Amino acid sequence: MSMDRLIEKIIRMQNPTVVGLDPKLDYVPDYIKEKMFDKYGNTLKAASKALYAFNKELIDNLCDIVPAVKPQCAYYEMYGWQGVKALAKTIRYAQEKGMFVIVDGKRNDIGTTMEAYTAGHLGEIDVNGETLTPFGGDALTVNAYLGSDGITPLLKTCLEYDKGIFVLVKTSNPSSGELQDREIDGVPVYRLMGELCERWGEADPGAFGYSGVGAVVGATYPEQLAQLRKDLPHTFFLVPGYGAQGGGAKDVAGGFDENGLGAIVNSSRAVMTAYKKEGCDEKDFGAAASREATRMRDEILGFIGKIGR
Amino acid sequence: MSMDRLIEKIIRMQNPTVVGLDPKLDYVPDYIKEKMFDKYGNTLKAASKALYAFNKELIDNLCDIVPAVKPQCAYYEMYGWQGVKALAKTIRYAQEKGMFVIVDGKRNDIGTTMEAYTAGHLGEIDVNGETLTPFGGDALTVNAYLGSDGITPLLKTCLEYDKGIFVLVKTSNPSSGELQDREIDGVPVYRLMGELCERWGEADPGAFGYSGVGAVVGATYPEQLAQLRKDLPHTFFLVPGYGAQGGGAKDVAGGFDENGLGAIVNSSRAVMTAYKKEGCDEKDFGAAASREATRMRDEILGFIGKIGR
Repeated sequence: MSMDRLIEKIIRMQNPTVVGLDPKLDYVPDYIKEKMFDKYGNTLKAASKALYAFNKELIDNLCDIVPAVKPQCAYYEMYGWQGVKALAKTIRYAQEKGMFVIVDGKRNDIGTTMEAYTAGHLGEIDVNGETLTPFGGDALTVNAYLGSDGITPLLKTCLEYDKGIFVLVKTSNPSSGELQDREIDGVPVYRLMGELCERWGEADPGAFGYSGVGAVVGATYPEQLAQLRKDLPHTFFLVPGYGAQGGGAKDVAGGFDENGLGAIVNSSRAVMTAYKKEGCDEKDFGAAASREATRMRDEILGFIGKIGR
Repeated sequence: MSMDRLIEKIIRMQNPTVVGLDPKLDYVPDYIKEKMFDKYGNTLKAASKALYAFNKELIDNLCDIVPAVKPQCAYYEMYGWQGVKALAKTIRYAQEKGMFVIVDGKRNDIGTTMEAYTAGHLGEIDVNGETLTPFGGDALTVNAYLGSDGITPLLKTCLEYDKGIFVLVKTSNPSSGELQDREIDGVPVYRLMGELCERWGEADPGAFGYSGVGAVVGATYPEQLAQLRKDLPHTFFLVPGYGAQGGGAKDVAGGFDENGLGAIVNSSRAVMTAYKKEGCDEKDFGAAASREATRMRDEILGFIGKIGR
């Protein structure tokens, strides 16, 4: 457990960002889609092959600049089991290229069922004596509405396999306050959830002071983000909502500690569809993604300075 | 939207129960596993084939007695994309046999991402002009920690395709109270969540008075279940925790209204592994499952009487 592997990559690359791989078919350049439709027909298999080809080239263009990718499960499940196959291949390819993979599944359940999610997404399973790795992500986002029974089954596997989790604390969407901002004994729910993260993470503090139990805190609530950074000193933040959802570099700056650590900021659409915004040849989509990822890195570094002591 | 299709089946079969299809490889009889390992090696493919063969025979033996099945996504994802293929095939086969399929995924996200989950699990997608059905479940369990932004993307699809959702309200596990029982302005979180279900369901009240937005309420908290039945008159309950988790027929009785409607009670392990408990020939696992499902039905009917007006 712990976020050490992720933090080491962030320091080495001097880049506290992660690119979300949420490959809607609309985002994929036509030449890739046409090739797959010609070969496999208008099928889920063709869609899945197109997603993977798109991801693969994005990863090739990002792996030397960006420490991590965050595939969002929904965009793969949308294309059936064939789409989930593209997810599995994407995870494996990104890791081959040295990237840390945060699987954004927001999974949640209890007991042996949560153990099944854990084994599937972060661990290994036994099939008739053979040890197999179903998805093999490096970290998984989870939802803790069910309480500790939904989180403790993850912790053993995280420790054993050196993996991490990110618990939803304060999400980036407008209605997140319907439950998360409501106060229990004067403390908002998101803060209560954050305190649980601190407690769950105690078993393994990590070399940089951040445990393997991180938190999702949206860029769209900069004040809460900055306050949570102070209140949760051992909890690493995954920060969505930068770019398309309205959060800017200034908004995320409060999520970092005095060493420029403590958070990783996600951008999905702006990087994946940079070629559309640039208006360049669609075959240059990978280079355009790399330019946008570089711009984002530089913008955030401009606010936080050098990363690491 | 609405739970009408499910309720009609419950009345026709006089059976307010659903069988959870959570097929751990441990539950699958050896003769099925050995056949698949011989044919496909010790692989995820073999595991997936074994799960599906197991489910198929369970469905064959249950479809004339039980109105619905509830596959739990975790036990399929545990075997990688190959396991997810078994999930897709299971959903389709159960529907061919006339069963209502509740996909237990506890999915949650916001906006277009939640739309992607919705399209994948309950709706249709467009692939180059072809309309395809990725998973095609009849209902999906969801987690509303993110607020209305996580639920409204589901409602349009539920209305359009006559599908339903079950929102986690009061879960069956011991630690569910860590968040769900905490009080906000004197009202516990689970009750607040229940009230949101009533509000989200207003768009389509349903022929039996129950909307398409149901709630998950555990059998292990019989007092809360009975109180919620009174407080949430338009919200249909999916009730886990019967059997293996400790809830009995008496405990679930309070979840039903005066017409014996308003709830469907889940049992997973006790039905799937009835052959082990009975000690019968493992090849009779389907008949043993049917016997246990019948026993459960009769036990619950003993408390609630005839279903429907």
